[in-house]
Amino acid sequence: MGDPAGVGPEIAVKSSEYFIKKGGPIKPVILGSYGHIEQTAKNIVQTRVSLNSVKTNLPLEASYREGLINVADLSSMPYGQVKTGMLNPAYAKDVEKFIESAVDFSIKGRISGFATAPINKDMMLRGGARFGGHTELLGYLSSSENFAMLFYSRKLITVLATIHVPVSAVPSMITKESLRRVINISVNSMKKDFGKTDPRVAILGLNPHAGENGEMGSEEIKVIGPVIGELADGGLRIEGPFPSDSFFAEKYKYFDLVVSMYHDQALIPFKLFSFHKGVNVTVGLDIVRTSPVHGTAYDIAGKNTADCGSMIESVKLAYSIARNRKKWTKR
Amino acid sequence: MGDPAGVGPEIAVKSSEYFIKKGGPIKPVILGSYGHIEQTAKNIVQTRVSLNSVKTNLPLEASYREGLINVADLSSMPYGQVKTGMLNPAYAKDVEKFIESAVDFSIKGRISGFATAPINKDMMLRGGARFGGHTELLGYLSSSENFAMLFYSRKLITVLATIHVPVSAVPSMITKESLRRVINISVNSMKKDFGKTDPRVAILGLNPHAGENGEMGSEEIKVIGPVIGELADGGLRIEGPFPSDSFFAEKYKYFDLVVSMYHDQALIPFKLFSFHKGVNVTVGLDIVRTSPVHGTAYDIAGKNTADCGSMIESVKLAYSIARNRKKWTKR
Repeated sequence: MGDPAGVGPEIAVKSSEYFIKKGGPIKPVILGSYGHIEQTAKNIVQTRVSLNSVKTNLPLEASYREGLINVADLSSMPYGQVKTGMLNPAYAKDVEKFIESAVDFSIKGRISGFATAPINKDMMLRGGARFGGHTELLGYLSSSENFAMLFYSRKLITVLATIHVPVSAVPSMITKESLRRVINISVNSMKKDFGKTDPRVAILGLNPHAGENGEMGSEEIKVIGPVIGELADGGLRIEGPFPSDSFFAEKYKYFDLVVSMYHDQALIPFKLFSFHKGVNVTVGLDIVRTSPVHGTAYDIAGKNTADCGSMIESVKLAYSIARNRKKWTKR
Repeated sequence: MGDPAGVGPEIAVKSSEYFIKKGGPIKPVILGSYGHIEQTAKNIVQTRVSLNSVKTNLPLEASYREGLINVADLSSMPYGQVKTGMLNPAYAKDVEKFIESAVDFSIKGRISGFATAPINKDMMLRGGARFGGHTELLGYLSSSENFAMLFYSRKLITVLATIHVPVSAVPSMITKESLRRVINISVNSMKKDFGKTDPRVAILGLNPHAGENGEMGSEEIKVIGPVIGELADGGLRIEGPFPSDSFFAEKYKYFDLVVSMYHDQALIPFKLFSFHKGVNVTVGLDIVRTSPVHGTAYDIAGKNTADCGSMIESVKLAYSIARNRKKWTKR
């Protein structure tokens, strides 16, 4: 459900409706506050579809109902005070619990995977949550550092070598070790999550013109190039470092996976291509977790104008990853 | 003409043909080697249009001929040894002379402006040229530091706060002074070169999420935000700093000018939007200089496959800027 004051509850309801209408094998359950989802469904989305309460003390299938909006109530407080669009730290710990439950359900095999609706870092930290963002919380909950942030759309799959850090910190964080790690994690994910057994991998440069032979930065020569050489020698279909400016005009089409050096290098082209259909995936974890690429969007929350496309794609992708992993382990 | 071994001569010939066919007020003259342009026209482009030699010791109009490919021969050596597609430093000084002549002709009012075909930094420096790139050479020739690199297309106009520097050097180069300078230069250019008397200006952040209130970098709070506030108080229609990832999905449409903090932040979206139609403009100089956004492209030179769209747009824009400046000075 995500932040109750953001667009999360609205897109959770709308995408549930979408999957009801569509039919098929995906059976979504909203984890959050039943009361708040009910208010959202009635007053904001104004859906005619009724809600069903899924009991969490039994297998979820037991009380799941086809054709209804299924909600598992995990709230520990009343939600009548939520003012849509207004940051309110009072709900931080509840929101954190929803995410923890999704992880717990995943580990126990009660769900195949989950898509997290947006939360706000500031709201979470001010409300006493241990982590501001999903990715950090998930890493902690699964006791793993071996995860990476990957963005998926039909046009482009890209993984980030560095994530939420200032640009000034990026160059020193790009080491041979960190690059090898993110490439290994994401190539493994390509195989078992995306069914690409021999992926073609492109690595972007860090600097303008990928450094132009060291004229504008040495990271390509000292760090990025040698790692590419090493992995190519090991049999990986890997090329680069490519100048990132011209890469997205054309070349990206020939690769299954693009390794980006920093946040905006990946997300400028990704959001330009796929703003309403993009999915963020945490790869490298044993659990399956996806999320829309947009934030809580407080400015439009409560107006029934939020586009649920990115959430729908997130749920579909979580399902597809779970299915691909099953095939992979059966090999 | 640019580097004789790159696609410059080919796109110079092709775009001359385009303007002959189109008619209208633009009268292009190729500055370079007459012999090499003749070879290119015959053997590579295989045009049926004949060449005309424009004499430079008289006003250029005196020997200009409509309907022909007009070339002013400025070469000081034979060009029979040029191997298309092969970097050859032997021609660096001649190429530099072509550019110097274009500047000289501009200053003397013999031409209205010029579009430079691509050169290669490595080739120029190895061949003993004083500067590797056009922009640096032009700054030197016009004894000015008050210029900036701007990219123009119908979808997006963006100017760079930092240019050909490593990412690690970017944060320290973004100072209040450097930002004020680039904004002033480009806003003046919007007025006198592009006829936008009251431009709407967007400033991008440097860091992911534009720093998210200082969570991921402080440049937005310490440097960029204060400069925006100051200029807005002075009456400029200026907004930001915007997170650069979501900006190019939608928001960019509402602005006349986008100030980017570093090379790839501007050029990833710019080349994605307008690879074959984009134009690079050096703004802030008294002379008018544009250029295509691609490089020498040695890999496709000599194959008659180079797209001359960016060169055609460069010539058109040089003409348009020259005309707008005349109107501006007559106000």
